Amino acid sequence: MLLYHDQIKKRSAVNIDIEDRAYQFGDGVYEVIRIYNKKPFYLDAHLDRFVRSSTAIKIELPYPIQQLKQLLLQLIEQAQLETGNIYLQISRGVAPRSHAFPGTIQPVVIAYPQNTNRPISALNEGVCAITTPDIRWLRCDIKSLNLLGACLAKQEAIEREAQEAILIRDGYVTEGSSTNIFVVHNQTLYTHPANHLILNGVTRSIVLNLADKLCISTKESAISEDALESAEECFMTSTNMEICPIVQINDKKVGTGRPGIMAKQLQEAFEHLIGK
Amino acid sequence: MLLYHDQIKKRSAVNIDIEDRAYQFGDGVYEVIRIYNKKPFYLDAHLDRFVRSSTAIKIELPYPIQQLKQLLLQLIEQAQLETGNIYLQISRGVAPRSHAFPGTIQPVVIAYPQNTNRPISALNEGVCAITTPDIRWLRCDIKSLNLLGACLAKQEAIEREAQEAILIRDGYVTEGSSTNIFVVHNQTLYTHPANHLILNGVTRSIVLNLADKLCISTKESAISEDALESAEECFMTSTNMEICPIVQINDKKVGTGRPGIMAKQLQEAFEHLIGK
Repeated sequence: MLLYHDQIKKRSAVNIDIEDRAYQFGDGVYEVIRIYNKKPFYLDAHLDRFVRSSTAIKIELPYPIQQLKQLLLQLIEQAQLETGNIYLQISRGVAPRSHAFPGTIQPVVIAYPQNTNRPISALNEGVCAITTPDIRWLRCDIKSLNLLGACLAKQEAIEREAQEAILIRDGYVTEGSSTNIFVVHNQTLYTHPANHLILNGVTRSIVLNLADKLCISTKESAISEDALESAEECFMTSTNMEICPIVQINDKKVGTGRPGIMAKQLQEAFEHLIGK
Repeated sequence: MLLYHDQIKKRSAVNIDIEDRAYQFGDGVYEVIRIYNKKPFYLDAHLDRFVRSSTAIKIELPYPIQQLKQLLLQLIEQAQLETGNIYLQISRGVAPRSHAFPGTIQPVVIAYPQNTNRPISALNEGVCAITTPDIRWLRCDIKSLNLLGACLAKQEAIEREAQEAILIRDGYVTEGSSTNIFVVHNQTLYTHPANHLILNGVTRSIVLNLADKLCISTKESAISEDALESAEECFMTSTNMEICPIVQINDKKVGTGRPGIMAKQLQEAFEHLIGK
């Protein structure tokens, strides 16, 4: 089942053209929306960002965002996922290949459900991460389809028997290959400011809000690679990974090598939010 | 008409899946091969680079490169283009969406002809260019499908009534949005060294060879934005644009504001090479 333009179709009924600009240029943007208890989680925040990303690369939605929201709600209703994701993508559309934007063409909107469970064991036990240079472009604030740098970093992590790659640009932690990174140092929770070097994650914002409520001191300031090495705690956040402790970076334990207290506190508050 | 995997098919018979990794991650590489007089121009150089790019992102060709060459020659034969292009692309393949590389999947190879004339007026009269920051990733040596940065730069050029965007990184010219840039300074021809910051163009290499034969002094060394402003000549090279003079950059004429002598000499030698 798939939303295609403004209709819900069978996946086999949808044909992507070889000259779809998403296929040849990665010329599009996307969102991954979490479903808990058959309901979308922070749907409006995802749709706001979807509009921001589209606008940044001058793709105009083919219909009002409220209509897209209704279509997604229909898709979620029909998919009947207890826990899962909706992947949503817009491409600039189909046109003879040429770098500059074509004239008036119809953007291609697709969305489909994915059956994805919560990563319970990772959340409880924590995961290992590696560090690797951040070689991505300088507009990481746009949630675009140009994800090869992120894919290569994630693949490097897997090959080095870790679950995430922490990206380092000019000696500072930016974010993970598909997550935001939080580091606890001197009892303060640090994360990179939401500028052009990172994607401003929905879960990242939720965590900053929860930390405020829990009276955890936070600072949106880039942390150096050296400070990362002496972190008291480290965790990553994303729509799929929620708040996931990082217990080892490269070959070195983080703190005690067990999920940290702050991560646990935030996880608890987050579970309350998602109704678990 | 389209090469799909190892068969030549009707375009309408080919269905790209929404979970093709080229569609969701730009996870693939490509080549544009020029056809002159119904024959491919520097096909082996393009295929060598195609293999280099694929290898760099660990996509294995599904069959030997010699077989791909034969299939492309068949496609070119059937297309009967006097002058045109073959667009060739390989994607890692189709798999449920996840950043890390999936297990063994079949890469998706496509290639198709495009009817594209030589840009005669641009070659004779020259074109205008703008300068804009190079915001692309740090592996521009890979001819990947992550082209959004290049598209945005080209679009900016068009909106500012120019034909190409010259990209500036840290005060130095890297390349154009879809071309290599050459600059003449003190009678020496400069172009950026073929490192990770530029794509090593096939036409770029041809021009460096032709310059040697014409006893033009060349230097593969990055030229500063300041030096660009006082250039005696400037031109761009690419498979489609050949050797195309740039006669104005931003609001300022290059040299006399007419195509330069060195560009003309090189164009003449190039035309000899393509048999025009």
